[in-house]
Amino acid sequence: MPVQRGRMFFMNPGPTNIPDRVLRAMHRPALDFAQKEFKAIAEECFVGLKKVFKTEQIMLAYAASGHGAWESAVVNVCSAGDIVLVPETGHFSSSWTQMVEHYGIKVEMVPADWRRGVDPAAVEARLKADVNHEIRAVLQVHNETSTGVAHPVAAIRKAIDAAGHPALYLVDTISSLGSFDFRMDEWGVDVAVGGSQKGLMLPPGMCFTGVSRKALAASQSATLPREYWDWRRMLDGERQARFAGTAPVHLMFGLQESLRMIEEETLDGVFARHARLGAAARACVKAWSAGGGPELFCTNPDLVSDSVTAVQVPDGSDANKLREVCAERFNVSFGGGLSRLNGKVFRIGHMGDLNEPMLMGALTAAEMGLDLAGIPHGKGGVEAAMASLKAA
Amino acid sequence: MPVQRGRMFFMNPGPTNIPDRVLRAMHRPALDFAQKEFKAIAEECFVGLKKVFKTEQIMLAYAASGHGAWESAVVNVCSAGDIVLVPETGHFSSSWTQMVEHYGIKVEMVPADWRRGVDPAAVEARLKADVNHEIRAVLQVHNETSTGVAHPVAAIRKAIDAAGHPALYLVDTISSLGSFDFRMDEWGVDVAVGGSQKGLMLPPGMCFTGVSRKALAASQSATLPREYWDWRRMLDGERQARFAGTAPVHLMFGLQESLRMIEEETLDGVFARHARLGAAARACVKAWSAGGGPELFCTNPDLVSDSVTAVQVPDGSDANKLREVCAERFNVSFGGGLSRLNGKVFRIGHMGDLNEPMLMGALTAAEMGLDLAGIPHGKGGVEAAMASLKAA
Amino acid sequence: MPVQRGRMFFMNPGPTNIPDRVLRAMHRPALDFAQKEFKAIAEECFVGLKKVFKTEQIMLAYAASGHGAWESAVVNVCSAGDIVLVPETGHFSSSWTQMVEHYGIKVEMVPADWRRGVDPAAVEARLKADVNHEIRAVLQVHNETSTGVAHPVAAIRKAIDAAGHPALYLVDTISSLGSFDFRMDEWGVDVAVGGSQKGLMLPPGMCFTGVSRKALAASQSATLPREYWDWRRMLDGERQARFAGTAPVHLMFGLQESLRMIEEETLDGVFARHARLGAAARACVKAWSAGGGPELFCTNPDLVSDSVTAVQVPDGSDANKLREVCAERFNVSFGGGLSRLNGKVFRIGHMGDLNEPMLMGALTAAEMGLDLAGIPHGKGGVEAAMASLKAA
Amino acid sequence: MPVQRGRMFFMNPGPTNIPDRVLRAMHRPALDFAQKEFKAIAEECFVGLKKVFKTEQIMLAYAASGHGAWESAVVNVCSAGDIVLVPETGHFSSSWTQMVEHYGIKVEMVPADWRRGVDPAAVEARLKADVNHEIRAVLQVHNETSTGVAHPVAAIRKAIDAAGHPALYLVDTISSLGSFDFRMDEWGVDVAVGGSQKGLMLPPGMCFTGVSRKALAASQSATLPREYWDWRRMLDGERQARFAGTAPVHLMFGLQESLRMIEEETLDGVFARHARLGAAARACVKAWSAGGGPELFCTNPDLVSDSVTAVQVPDGSDANKLREVCAERFNVSFGGGLSRLNGKVFRIGHMGDLNEPMLMGALTAAEMGLDLAGIPHGKGGVEAAMASLKAA
Repeated sequence: MPVQRGRMFFMNPGPTNIPDRVLRAMHRPALDFAQKEFKAIAEECFVGLKKVFKTEQIMLAYAASGHGAWESAVVNVCSAGDIVLVPETGHFSSSWTQMVEHYGIKVEMVPADWRRGVDPAAVEARLKADVNHEIRAVLQVHNETSTGVAHPVAAIRKAIDAAGHPALYLVDTISSLGSFDFRMDEWGVDVAVGGSQKGLMLPPGMCFTGVSRKALAASQSATLPREYWDWRRMLDGERQARFAGTAPVHLMFGLQESLRMIEEETLDGVFARHARLGAAARACVKAWSAGGGPELFCTNPDLVSDSVTAVQVPDGSDANKLREVCAERFNVSFGGGLSRLNGKVFRIGHMGDLNEPMLMGALTAAEMGLDLAGIPHGKGGVEAAMASLKAA
Repeated sequence: MPVQRGRMFFMNPGPTNIPDRVLRAMHRPALDFAQKEFKAIAEECFVGLKKVFKTEQIMLAYAASGHGAWESAVVNVCSAGDIVLVPETGHFSSSWTQMVEHYGIKVEMVPADWRRGVDPAAVEARLKADVNHEIRAVLQVHNETSTGVAHPVAAIRKAIDAAGHPALYLVDTISSLGSFDFRMDEWGVDVAVGGSQKGLMLPPGMCFTGVSRKALAASQSATLPREYWDWRRMLDGERQARFAGTAPVHLMFGLQESLRMIEEETLDGVFARHARLGAAARACVKAWSAGGGPELFCTNPDLVSDSVTAVQVPDGSDANKLREVCAERFNVSFGGGLSRLNGKVFRIGHMGDLNEPMLMGALTAAEMGLDLAGIPHGKGGVEAAMASLKAA
Repeated sequence: MPVQRGRMFFMNPGPTNIPDRVLRAMHRPALDFAQKEFKAIAEECFVGLKKVFKTEQIMLAYAASGHGAWESAVVNVCSAGDIVLVPETGHFSSSWTQMVEHYGIKVEMVPADWRRGVDPAAVEARLKADVNHEIRAVLQVHNETSTGVAHPVAAIRKAIDAAGHPALYLVDTISSLGSFDFRMDEWGVDVAVGGSQKGLMLPPGMCFTGVSRKALAASQSATLPREYWDWRRMLDGERQARFAGTAPVHLMFGLQESLRMIEEETLDGVFARHARLGAAARACVKAWSAGGGPELFCTNPDLVSDSVTAVQVPDGSDANKLREVCAERFNVSFGGGLSRLNGKVFRIGHMGDLNEPMLMGALTAAEMGLDLAGIPHGKGGVEAAMASLKAA
Repeated sequence: MPVQRGRMFFMNPGPTNIPDRVLRAMHRPALDFAQKEFKAIAEECFVGLKKVFKTEQIMLAYAASGHGAWESAVVNVCSAGDIVLVPETGHFSSSWTQMVEHYGIKVEMVPADWRRGVDPAAVEARLKADVNHEIRAVLQVHNETSTGVAHPVAAIRKAIDAAGHPALYLVDTISSLGSFDFRMDEWGVDVAVGGSQKGLMLPPGMCFTGVSRKALAASQSATLPREYWDWRRMLDGERQARFAGTAPVHLMFGLQESLRMIEEETLDGVFARHARLGAAARACVKAWSAGGGPELFCTNPDLVSDSVTAVQVPDGSDANKLREVCAERFNVSFGGGLSRLNGKVFRIGHMGDLNEPMLMGALTAAEMGLDLAGIPHGKGGVEAAMASLKAA
């Protein structure tokens, strides 16, 4: 492996760039998590998280990867034999589905084109057909990290309402939270699933669930066995009073700092920056796509994601070859295609602690990499991205 | 709160002191956990962990607190309705028991005096009585962190064997691992449960299970629903191939470094140091106990713990008052008494990244604190500790 | 060398312990020192430094060790052929003298017993005898780091005044600043020399001069060639506008933080803590001295230093052997004896980021070390130190 | 000031980017610089520095900015009244000249066009005319940081030799060392002046002189007063045995790490990378220069610098406006024009810990910034830079 000098451009769609401020905040000794100092940190974190989730209901944090929050969301409100509805989004709707099935829950998919995104009307139709209200919950991925499609969470809420269906609404906001708008309360989300390592700019290892009062009520009668994820043991009223075991104090030190950074920039500022960077990335890819070059995987312009852009390379080209040349020659790391998209797609993460020159450094590397990897492509991607950013 | 200057003496029995080397190793950007660099780090960690657990079987790591490994141990090898035998040790045998019961597993306790420790003969007797081998597993806490008693894991293995019982042997080595001797393979442990934040000198947030082939086989037919903790999904043959979701890369960076530190000191060196420090702490407490002063909670000299010393204060004294005065006046943090021991016991953690003057600084603070808190005590604790260390 | 585990107890009288907060503040990228952000940091630092020096006159900072401030003090106000008066204090008055002589300046020493300290009356007498006012300056070390004697800076000012002598008063406050009281303006100090690595709790590499208006005026006509240290090039009016070359931005990041820490604790709080720790160290040594054991080098109880205690071992004993055994066996570092005190003295630094258990950890190591090194000593040093701290 | 998110692109020509590895290496407690551990670090550093300077003679390090090494070079080998020859290079030859004059040394400039660089023939002619060998030394800046001109150090050595002149040859390699080739011994340099904060990738605060045996001999008879910089006091034979005062231990921790990084990449690898990046920067500027846009300040293609590119904007344009827009909008910091070039020139530092996407992120920001600042320029600078890098 050649010696790499200079900072790696880490453009994976999670984990993502960790600000120096956050790393510094984590560079400290442990403390007694039963004492006042930690309680104050935790309180600040929960208040800040609620602002980011846009909820005034219940916030719970876990020492676990994002999959833990997926599991917690499901095992607290479902029982074996329940039916859940999963609108198809891509790799992550499949993974969540598999998890759910392992708990003896029946899954009905609402099929969708991975490139077009979920159709709220199809969700509404299926729920209307469920006249006996056997469907316990709708499980929706907000931002499908494998495809770069930002699904219409608010519209699906309207579909559920239009169907007059009491199903709980569980939303995975792992790769949207802190990158573009998510409104737990306004959109009627019952359980919102988040992780530390994306828009919250932390190392992986912590996850979160926003929990509505309706979901909390449901958890009282849900019968799946649970302990580590059990809300009943973590909560004292509507406040998290304890973690399962030792609290992940260092991630909390980091979270306190990242929430302060978001507060300083304001959430709207954060979203505007992601919108600016996302638009530039897409402008770049559109230029490449001329003459049959690499193109946006997401073909639905209303649902493009501001946190990740998936790029589909032409038939006969290997997206992984591009990733390799960018890594080896330019120290730039892009995400690969997941499951059936492996080799066909590479993904440009543009979430979290990112600015214009970081994105442009990566896009110039990608554009050079296309040539070096022999992938035919339209010219002027970088120029188009610059034009987009200048105009922003 | 008064401004505190100088380094806090963090003498809790976990989380514990994190070496600067480990904090430095964690102060770095994230990386793509699907790539070679991380795979090499993970491989080094798994090899090193096996040496610390003294096993050549299977090692699994999780993004979770130590409770996660407890849960993983149980949900992978037990089914609802199973019976497990739990020798009573203190707060943590109770907690593990509660967890197990939430999964519909029946628990039989083997009662024991918290201050004397588990009696292997009682375990053997109970297992012999189980002629139909209905007991699925024995769940044993090695070092009971709440009492400072190091239970006889090897002797209990012999008891199981003497009873000719096929029960799986699950051992919580969270606060013994990397502090004093634990031998997973030699002692016939089927699932060994460890955590990051004790002898491994890391922040909390990661946990481990050593898994015997017998336990792995049992996991194939165990029927508790599971996903996050499911060994079947993590393993490729006998090697961990994936985490549930994103790997906790920063804790792995730290683990790599802490395992190197242990390798440099050698495990035997680590154990000798803990033995030296534990003996000094106990010598100190013994001097205090003269005339009815604070005394060792553990009354069984064969089972004193080298990683934590629990000290019971005389009736009428408040252990928490001592803790407060030590914290406020001397910036020294001791652990409190858990559950029914609250106020009656304080705990001196002496595990992990600790040396003689760190211990002595804490013991001098405690000895001054006894006076300041008005707790009657024998004189000369610090002198006795020094004598012990000098002779070591 | 044996592997050392746990934190080193770094009890040298400089460099000294660096708080985690300071190390974190320095763990960041460089910046353009000509831009606003750095100017604001520098401004905050200069304001804070003036409070610590207790001056409202001029403050200058240099990228250099403390010797640089010594040199700057002299080359800016003296000319070749000048005479300066140097009251003898120990190793550092000798070193400063040598430096001065290299610049063609004549030095007159005021002899003194290193263990008793400077006699202001002797200074006054010499100055009175200088009827033609040929003496350009008095160079006084405030805290002689090699002996643990805190010389009477205010009384010497009075001696100068009583003699009616116009000599400039240059004071080295390197190892007293930020540890015990120093008052540049009130005590009529013309140039105060400080360093980063003692009470200011920074790494070595930066030094400071407080400059009175009288000294600044003198610098206009002084004729020693100078450039790196030249005040005229650094100042814009009474404010430092530039460094010689690139500013030491990282040390300034650290200085900003350490000054904030001092502000939080208050200077009086800092001094009280040092007084408490110094008294305890001396109480310990006094107990050792019984029966001809190691004794305080400073025999003048009015001039004992609260930042460093020099301990003279009995004839026939080797102070360095004690230092070795403490380092190798307990990971505790004490300072050695300088120049003619080598082997006869060891020094306990108790300045900067230090608290009670840090000191006590070191004193217990020393007391054990005396036995291990075979140095005869009275018993009960640690007990005496604890008694002193409890009563404080 | 708007909140800045993401990493600043710090493209100043010093201080420059500090690798994470170096910052981590410096994030540690102090140590006793008189002990073995530090001596080993220092020894490793001196060996490594000699390789970077390409010398087998004498290496000396100072706690000081680069100006300190300038001063040390001069005050150790010159005496008041000496004449030195200074080929004109730009801002830094002027600054060095001023310093020298303050020491009573007479300076003769060899005038040169700042944009064309020094002419060795002019140096040779002047030295030949000095038939009495009154010129004590030639002071040459290797890389003039203010102009981006890399002066012909080897050719000037040949000019000195051709003139048969015994003058000492003092070379400032501050912004070339560790970026492009410098050969102290082969090129007959007598004193080579280096700093920490450029190619060595450290914070500012440390500087170096390589010293030839001829220069060392000269220093024995040179009569300028000196102490802090005095080689005689630092050396024990040909080895540096001490610093003036306390060693700058943290910068040495960092230096040890940065020298290891250079060793890993190899010096030739470092130079090749700088050549690649420098060529790309210049290709970019050349495209901008079409039609009267911003152009390379250096008009001599043989002397372009691989560590810094100075760009002259068209008359009527303000280079500082471009710098401001890049800083505020894109978080990219470029260097400004020094002294008479202020406002006319901006400077792109491309030295030290830099890679392709870091450079390209900065160049895209600059190209967008030219538009935003209303500076007329040719198109396609970024495209040209990419073409250059692809072909490299």
